[in-house]
Amino acid sequence: MIDLAHLDAVAGIVGASHLVGPGSDTGPYEQGARHDRGRAAFVVRPADTREVSQVVAYCVRHAIHLVPQSGNTGLVSGSTPDMSGRQGVLSLERLRGLDLDPANRTARVGAGVRLSALNEALEPHGLFFPIDLGADPMMGGMVATNTGGARFLRYGDVRRNVLGLEVVLPDAQGTVLDLASPLRKNNVGADLKQLFIGSCGAFGVVTQAVVEVHRRPAQTATAILVPRDDDALVELLVLFEELAGEYLSAFEGMSRPAMQAAIAHAPAVRNPFARGEIPAYAVLVELTRSWANADGEAPLDAVLEGILTRIWERDDAPLADALVARSDEAWALRHAISEGLKASGHLLGFDLSFRRADLPAFRRFMLAELGARHPAWRVCDFGHVGDGGVHFNLVHPHAAGPVPRESIEALRAFVMGEAVTRFGGSFSAEHGLGRANQVFYDAYAPDALKRVTGALLGAITHHPLGTPRLGPPPAAQGAR
Amino acid sequence: MIDLAHLDAVAGIVGASHLVGPGSDTGPYEQGARHDRGRAAFVVRPADTREVSQVVAYCVRHAIHLVPQSGNTGLVSGSTPDMSGRQGVLSLERLRGLDLDPANRTARVGAGVRLSALNEALEPHGLFFPIDLGADPMMGGMVATNTGGARFLRYGDVRRNVLGLEVVLPDAQGTVLDLASPLRKNNVGADLKQLFIGSCGAFGVVTQAVVEVHRRPAQTATAILVPRDDDALVELLVLFEELAGEYLSAFEGMSRPAMQAAIAHAPAVRNPFARGEIPAYAVLVELTRSWANADGEAPLDAVLEGILTRIWERDDAPLADALVARSDEAWALRHAISEGLKASGHLLGFDLSFRRADLPAFRRFMLAELGARHPAWRVCDFGHVGDGGVHFNLVHPHAAGPVPRESIEALRAFVMGEAVTRFGGSFSAEHGLGRANQVFYDAYAPDALKRVTGALLGAITHHPLGTPRLGPPPAAQGAR
Repeated sequence: MIDLAHLDAVAGIVGASHLVGPGSDTGPYEQGARHDRGRAAFVVRPADTREVSQVVAYCVRHAIHLVPQSGNTGLVSGSTPDMSGRQGVLSLERLRGLDLDPANRTARVGAGVRLSALNEALEPHGLFFPIDLGADPMMGGMVATNTGGARFLRYGDVRRNVLGLEVVLPDAQGTVLDLASPLRKNNVGADLKQLFIGSCGAFGVVTQAVVEVHRRPAQTATAILVPRDDDALVELLVLFEELAGEYLSAFEGMSRPAMQAAIAHAPAVRNPFARGEIPAYAVLVELTRSWANADGEAPLDAVLEGILTRIWERDDAPLADALVARSDEAWALRHAISEGLKASGHLLGFDLSFRRADLPAFRRFMLAELGARHPAWRVCDFGHVGDGGVHFNLVHPHAAGPVPRESIEALRAFVMGEAVTRFGGSFSAEHGLGRANQVFYDAYAPDALKRVTGALLGAITHHPLGTPRLGPPPAAQGAR
Repeated sequence: MIDLAHLDAVAGIVGASHLVGPGSDTGPYEQGARHDRGRAAFVVRPADTREVSQVVAYCVRHAIHLVPQSGNTGLVSGSTPDMSGRQGVLSLERLRGLDLDPANRTARVGAGVRLSALNEALEPHGLFFPIDLGADPMMGGMVATNTGGARFLRYGDVRRNVLGLEVVLPDAQGTVLDLASPLRKNNVGADLKQLFIGSCGAFGVVTQAVVEVHRRPAQTATAILVPRDDDALVELLVLFEELAGEYLSAFEGMSRPAMQAAIAHAPAVRNPFARGEIPAYAVLVELTRSWANADGEAPLDAVLEGILTRIWERDDAPLADALVARSDEAWALRHAISEGLKASGHLLGFDLSFRRADLPAFRRFMLAELGARHPAWRVCDFGHVGDGGVHFNLVHPHAAGPVPRESIEALRAFVMGEAVTRFGGSFSAEHGLGRANQVFYDAYAPDALKRVTGALLGAITHHPLGTPRLGPPPAAQGAR
């Protein structure tokens, strides 16, 4: 248990009403979006950067481990405390500053601002922040995990859209590093802010970001494609990049079991296929453009139909079927997959990425291997073909009975290991590191990378080895 | 002078024919693209990453300062040795590996591959690397300076397009850090490669990059706009982002003296204005799209004309004039500016950036102040309005006689100082740091930033303070 004098000191910084002590209602802060559960020594909710700095400085000086948390929607146990009961949660939910600069197409956003709130504020200006997710995270966590999403192909990840950051370093002074510039170009030395993006809080607490925002799409056209076969998938992607160019905004793959789970779980989701026959694999392709139709300009639906016609007319067309779909219906199907899988059994999620051309080979390999080794698990993969990402999710159906714990560990080790070593892929494409993936970092990150990361972390924190540090220690823990 | 035993040892690594010793023809390696001149102790040209590593390790162990150099086209004295005669040049020009992956839209590129060579290799695949420059740099230098260019607005800088890097660290082992992944998403800890982008070699030598490449434009439409007045400039930019959206690929400003110099210097450049009357300021706006016209689709020229019509029809239209131009002619004018300015007098170049809305205010302020303080210098600014960048170049015309040295120092200090402190701008937007800008880093980088950068650099190099390090030490020098 934590010393009560520490709680008093932290309460003295933020005010008693913003320190939730042990025995109080720390529940929502201890439980993540997927399987993680932990026990918090306390939850502290500072009001601003100054208070964050003071809390961090106090905790560093007294060797109290803090886990930064904003929206707590992550999937890798990156924002919740462990079971020790000795870690405090540093909640950033009160950092809700929001300042728009429409002429610069930028926004200054507090770590506690939700994606939905940012987009509501931007909408009257015809702008949006183009990270497209099922969840509704806050800015701090989006930066800390370098979130991707379904429009990566067009707009990139959070990193690509972060112009500036303000961070509090985990040192004894709680140094505030103000890198929160709204400039698009500023090459005056190493770009330190990059260290804090995607490293889950280990290098410092993100308190504020300046992000680039984009024109909202004014027109959308969507189709559901059925590739001729496995190898046609990447062929189709390349053709769409060639024929739709700047309009292409999503190219999302969905396996049959993933679509089946979505449709079974969400009855409002329309089955778009003829006679309801779900194909082995389908792609949601989306075109968008940010302006309304000008005189004489073909509507985007007609552009998409023209592209599909040209693809059909090719010799050996890579299509087996193509349905122009209502955009809301197509995305409803795509977005219902995650909930559908959760409802259909025990979910084991993977967030992998590959060279785009390797996606079909990985899938073939895994379907064969898992079918032989773990027949009770169903492969329900879906994901972002356009950027090489795949949520290679497995489900152990309720009907198959209880899930043997050792089966989960073996499966995780097998899928991650093959993804990395056989296919050169990533074991965490867009969800970050967190406690859930630490073991794979330890196993698969090259030694030189670990050594350099550890040295950098030591340089930033100025801690002697072994002193508690900030955050679930991605990269760091394996490194020291 | 350098010890001959060192030269023998380095020659033993790369072969005698790839070590250019003192007294030999080191000239081209000692002279930069603008005003910088230096003296090299030697020039070493390793053949591959292994030799780079061995050379670096040897030089680190023997406290020999190395300056990495690839195409040597930079403008900030970042790739040439100083006048001491004690620094060796580490030329990367022999690292010419090039491996394309069209399905992944990526290329693995050696540090010694020229931009033009990369684009020639990509052209048959309908692809290109979208950094658009007057110069023809090599990949190593493009990464080390995080080059921008004229299509930043659409494609971003080099950083945005780097997926992976291989670097050699300036430590006693010449550690090779292989971060050269072709994955688009890989969030498994801190993204270390970012430290080597834009930091001019201080953190390590870039030997290889994996970059994302893009579909080549298949259609282009270009116009030259004359804004109604100063404030109409950003208004026009925002209108084009709204009306041209995904098509907009360049929005480049040109002042009257810049255009005059281009036209005077390059007689083949056509004066596009009615009766040859060059306006006070003009904008080159470019739309591109990466696909050929489909049936029934309006050509891009017609789209551009439609947009201009809609802008003219607005109340209080922000335009004074608009000329649809041939793309090659418009860009010939834009690209002739740099040479034109060099030919017209002594050039003092600035590479600044601002919030976009601050561009006109900065320009107004500087025109008034410089007119009063330094009337012999002409403001010949041009640049990348779309991303807030401006090459705020000054010319002391030949006719005005010799340039007083103290005038140059005073001007540099005044323009940089006002840009940073009064307007919140950057003193090096896209050219990097180098020796030329070190004094401004020392003056304007915040102390916390310097301290952290210095600590990181120390952690990477594992050097005791004061040991010679790699590169013209951007960020580092001020920091230690």
